[in-house]
Amino acid sequence: MSKERIKFPVRIGLLGCGTVGGGVIRLIAENQEYLTSRVGAPLEIRRVLVRDAEKDRVPECRREWITTAADEVFAKDIDVLVEVIGGEEPAKTLIERAIREGKGVVTANKLLLAKHGPALVRMATEHGVDLAFEASVGGGIPIIRTLREALTSDWVESVHGILNGTCNYILTRMRDGKVSFDVALGEAQAKGYAEADPTLDVDGHDAAQKLCVISMLAFGANVHESDVPVEGIRLVDQLDFRFAERFGYTIKHLVIGRDLGDRIALRVHPALIPKHSVLANIDGVLNGVLVVGRGLGPCLLVGRGAGDMPTAVSVVADIVDVARSKIGGEPGLSTRGIQTQDRALAPLAEVTSRFYLRFDVEDRPGVLGKIASGLGEAGVSIEQMVQEGRAVEVDDAVPVLIITHACREGAVRAALDSIGREVFMHGRPRLLRIEDV
Amino acid sequence: MSKERIKFPVRIGLLGCGTVGGGVIRLIAENQEYLTSRVGAPLEIRRVLVRDAEKDRVPECRREWITTAADEVFAKDIDVLVEVIGGEEPAKTLIERAIREGKGVVTANKLLLAKHGPALVRMATEHGVDLAFEASVGGGIPIIRTLREALTSDWVESVHGILNGTCNYILTRMRDGKVSFDVALGEAQAKGYAEADPTLDVDGHDAAQKLCVISMLAFGANVHESDVPVEGIRLVDQLDFRFAERFGYTIKHLVIGRDLGDRIALRVHPALIPKHSVLANIDGVLNGVLVVGRGLGPCLLVGRGAGDMPTAVSVVADIVDVARSKIGGEPGLSTRGIQTQDRALAPLAEVTSRFYLRFDVEDRPGVLGKIASGLGEAGVSIEQMVQEGRAVEVDDAVPVLIITHACREGAVRAALDSIGREVFMHGRPRLLRIEDV
Repeated sequence: MSKERIKFPVRIGLLGCGTVGGGVIRLIAENQEYLTSRVGAPLEIRRVLVRDAEKDRVPECRREWITTAADEVFAKDIDVLVEVIGGEEPAKTLIERAIREGKGVVTANKLLLAKHGPALVRMATEHGVDLAFEASVGGGIPIIRTLREALTSDWVESVHGILNGTCNYILTRMRDGKVSFDVALGEAQAKGYAEADPTLDVDGHDAAQKLCVISMLAFGANVHESDVPVEGIRLVDQLDFRFAERFGYTIKHLVIGRDLGDRIALRVHPALIPKHSVLANIDGVLNGVLVVGRGLGPCLLVGRGAGDMPTAVSVVADIVDVARSKIGGEPGLSTRGIQTQDRALAPLAEVTSRFYLRFDVEDRPGVLGKIASGLGEAGVSIEQMVQEGRAVEVDDAVPVLIITHACREGAVRAALDSIGREVFMHGRPRLLRIEDV
Repeated sequence: MSKERIKFPVRIGLLGCGTVGGGVIRLIAENQEYLTSRVGAPLEIRRVLVRDAEKDRVPECRREWITTAADEVFAKDIDVLVEVIGGEEPAKTLIERAIREGKGVVTANKLLLAKHGPALVRMATEHGVDLAFEASVGGGIPIIRTLREALTSDWVESVHGILNGTCNYILTRMRDGKVSFDVALGEAQAKGYAEADPTLDVDGHDAAQKLCVISMLAFGANVHESDVPVEGIRLVDQLDFRFAERFGYTIKHLVIGRDLGDRIALRVHPALIPKHSVLANIDGVLNGVLVVGRGLGPCLLVGRGAGDMPTAVSVVADIVDVARSKIGGEPGLSTRGIQTQDRALAPLAEVTSRFYLRFDVEDRPGVLGKIASGLGEAGVSIEQMVQEGRAVEVDDAVPVLIITHACREGAVRAALDSIGREVFMHGRPRLLRIEDV
């Protein structure tokens, strides 16, 4: 490096010193020399905000950095605020303060970005400061960077993501270990891949928040989590896996976004995908995102979607970016060009796909015919139909499985409503979407 | 954007106006507004160097830009030189001139980077200018960006890549269509996926060049193509696919790099990988790179590895980066921190893996025993052994297939040399490495 201009350190204030924060401190300490050469100046942590000042921290965390008062972080003359406390408050207030005071911001906060991303990006742009958030989605996967930078000159047609490691671990265990949802969930909890209360993960809300963040960048859309139709994986069972396999599919929990031009279609749900799909082997706690750009074609990114070190690596990569753009005298590059607007959302009923339908029915003559004509009347055309096994006792249910040709979801729903009222039905008909991805 | 400092356009000189160059011109024209907002200033093409001034170009290419004299490109006061002519010369001379004159450089030239990458990066660093080369490897896949930026604070343990679309198309067709290598090659040529002379692709040299570029970033190594052990795919046949399948594998042509700490191991060859590997479904002309970082864990990137538009999208993303760092007053960021040195290479004989071995032998008693003891004497331990079918006539060969436990390649080679001399052998024993990736 012959033309260095900056000799001053880049001063960092860190909010939170849990596993990710500790990882950030450790990575900065371990890679000091290399990072200095990448940034053009040393990175120096000045303050670390924690709740409990007495708790043990990673050995690289110096005692004098620790504070329990947010004002202390801002009192030090910091250049970059790094937020890894998570949750809405006090993260939002502190990040907004940092933006107003002209500091660069790095955050790993998915919830915050999903709820207030467009507003925070706008605020950062107005104040000409950086707001980087690679670690908010997909842990160590450079999805934000890729959407933001590499697709600069392209137009994103669709995004398909496996973005919840808990769901993916459970579905992988159900497929490979032939265990029930409950058993797989118990295993995930035992291994620390699922929370004691797994609602946020297995019901799809975590994935929906990530789709909000992705939609901001991929489709320039202000999206609120409540706008996104969400289904979790609780209803998927072994029978579904068995038939998916038989039809040549596997089952994954997906976030899906598609730009239809005049509007966008967003949804989060389990889906059948072909066994030979590039997404099919993304198993266990791995995450993956398939972006299809008009010019670029398909681009798939896969990696550990969670975990301290992958997330910390992403946070440090963002710190480097923000520090560089700060000392380059041109802060604000990370958010420049991100423009969002309210975009019309296509209702789920109007989204077209193929469907896997399952009817648990009484085993008696005429039932298959009634199902088939019920679908036909709604304009739903059948590609494959399988009835397997015989009921052992008269009242036992047997499953009827159907793969439809592509049609509007509204049409299928109408057919299921009417078939669902037939006396031969045991329970409600089930529907899984098929994504030929 | 409230704090723009730059109102001047970023002036571009383009070397070459073939399919990629035309794509670059088109993308810049089509996305002018968005690019301006991303860069903070408009991108303006000033000169386009071509060989034939009379040839038809994309409609967005203005007549007055065209020149056949390199000096003309430099006479215009350009900020960024974009090289998409390929080949060693005149690309090298023109890029070196641009670096000396303080211009930012974007290149898609794999051959040039493989041969002179470390020297050109050093030169760019010394002159404080940018040298960006995302499009040189993996077309639209952001592998360079990911290695350079996202892994800033991490240490790359290994890289596995499917980086030659021609090989991958041929192997995919051989697997799925059960056709011979020659038939698959003919199809690839008919579809424009393979050159009339396919040597560079099917013999692995193209992939080896890409591994050189990757090694520069992933392992900080000066590597020359001739340092890399290379095997192509000509010897893989239907029997190999059949047995690979039976053992639970598929066959892919891989580039492999591994940092062993004191030295690095590099190689390019076809390999058996598990059917459930994330690399197994990367089919047809898709490319993919799996990077394993110490902190990050596995990170897989998949996309179109070639093609005009994916490559053009990568070139434009690089132009944006270089333009931004130029107008930010801090050029040279793209290469800052890339440091290379001569690193010791582990000889192939010392690399450890499992092996798939194939012996076409005379069908007579005692042969299996001789093969097994030949391997045992060399210290190679057998995991599975299959002899299938009986020879129809006395002199017909039957294949004996063996999967070994992990061992040094040198040991296996020694055993194959001695078994290969046995009179019962028809042809030479065959070896494919197994990568549990």
